[in-house]
Amino acid sequence: MTADLMIGTDLAAEMVAKAAERAKALQEKYGVQPCLATVLVGDDPASATYVRMKQNRSKKAGIGSRSVVMPAETTTDELVAEIRKLSEDPEVHGILLQHPVPAQIDERAAFEAIDPGKDVDGVTMLSFAAMAFGDPGFRSATPGGIMRLLEAYDVPLEGAHAVVIGRSPILGKPAGMLLLASNATVTYAHSRTRDLPELVRTADVVIAAVGKANFVRGDWLKPGAVVVDAGYNEGNVGDVHFEEASQVARLITPVPGGVGPMTIALLLEQTVDAAEAQLG
Amino acid sequence: MTADLMIGTDLAAEMVAKAAERAKALQEKYGVQPCLATVLVGDDPASATYVRMKQNRSKKAGIGSRSVVMPAETTTDELVAEIRKLSEDPEVHGILLQHPVPAQIDERAAFEAIDPGKDVDGVTMLSFAAMAFGDPGFRSATPGGIMRLLEAYDVPLEGAHAVVIGRSPILGKPAGMLLLASNATVTYAHSRTRDLPELVRTADVVIAAVGKANFVRGDWLKPGAVVVDAGYNEGNVGDVHFEEASQVARLITPVPGGVGPMTIALLLEQTVDAAEAQLG
Repeated sequence: MTADLMIGTDLAAEMVAKAAERAKALQEKYGVQPCLATVLVGDDPASATYVRMKQNRSKKAGIGSRSVVMPAETTTDELVAEIRKLSEDPEVHGILLQHPVPAQIDERAAFEAIDPGKDVDGVTMLSFAAMAFGDPGFRSATPGGIMRLLEAYDVPLEGAHAVVIGRSPILGKPAGMLLLASNATVTYAHSRTRDLPELVRTADVVIAAVGKANFVRGDWLKPGAVVVDAGYNEGNVGDVHFEEASQVARLITPVPGGVGPMTIALLLEQTVDAAEAQLG
Repeated sequence: MTADLMIGTDLAAEMVAKAAERAKALQEKYGVQPCLATVLVGDDPASATYVRMKQNRSKKAGIGSRSVVMPAETTTDELVAEIRKLSEDPEVHGILLQHPVPAQIDERAAFEAIDPGKDVDGVTMLSFAAMAFGDPGFRSATPGGIMRLLEAYDVPLEGAHAVVIGRSPILGKPAGMLLLASNATVTYAHSRTRDLPELVRTADVVIAAVGKANFVRGDWLKPGAVVVDAGYNEGNVGDVHFEEASQVARLITPVPGGVGPMTIALLLEQTVDAAEAQLG
């Protein structure tokens, strides 16, 4: 094992501690606790776990949470109406719709029902465009968390070749746009990419965001590459074959303990940002 | 010279003829002529020429135009107010703000004052996100025109490596997103990219959108590459060194006569789309 670890746990704890201080200051100044509304549709146990984890962390940070749970057979209209209500509710400062939603729902329509000022998970079209254009705004939580991790570990991005594997609207696409805004040369790779291993071998920074266990292999990596594993598959396994990759990479995120805590920390930080903007 | 030319002229003329038929049908059905408002700020002669050209083509297509010309010292607030008026005017179906605007103006704020339903030049954040997410919506005129040209010339995009040189919000960035939606592997290159020639040599499709005359050289190209020149520099010169590149490429756009006519054709087509949606 040659790679150093990029660990998110301590850094995330610091971020959450700072958010907690700011939440306390808001409470003292306005008598209002920042509040994150979580919306969970259906009974996927993993999603339920994620939401519970986010609520627990919120509580520790002095952020209140409003929990909305809707049945698996919820329609798009019902979900949109519920999210609109939260968007209009002055007691709610941030809204998180847990991804994925059941297949009959138009997830984009649901995301777009989130007031842009409460989009603390960075999922709306406006938030995406702001990330792409380098404008201020809420970052998608996982890509934004990844950027904070790369900054904390002083990973040079300017002129570096970053290969993002995966192109989902809330993970791969915004991750690439944020890297581009940091002046990396960015390649989007995906299921139709030809000779993915050869392409990945040209990368200084690899972002794995495919949702397939142990997908990225050690011999796909350039020696000394920086590897960020945004995957989280059954059995606590990432998208990168960790044992192989850590023989070749210079820096690598473990799963769990790498990207995951940063995602939640950024969500909470952005919830406090939203509350400050709405109360101030 | 080995490359075949990808010529936009005839294809654009066909698109405009179809748009003209649809404009005529709208006139007959509703007694209303589709109307494109053009907004020109300042006295840059090239911008004035572009706007005039777009108005002339509109006229030939049976699309009315409303011309707004504002002085070079216009403020952001003044421009935003003018564009808001056009956004609210039921007689205006599409709005084009000629890029670039004078330096003191916040161009993004001006673009965002365009009603999304009238954004026929595809410059708003919502239009950008729709392109990125593969949703229906107005395409940025030049990238959208490039895609139509690539389709017309049967350029295979799925799995192809497309290198986009340039990352502006209305050209390079949306071009990359549209290529990604067509399942190309997409690399964004720019001024900070290291060893650009070597990177470009890995491209099956090259989109040059840098605004530097003769910037992309022949020996940067993979033999058989498809080269799209979206540049238009002083003296009718593109971003690609045409003589060198046409010795190596399989297909290449001439400047002028390649991308330019497609840009205007898409603008007119989208103006009729907008009028249909607003009148229907």
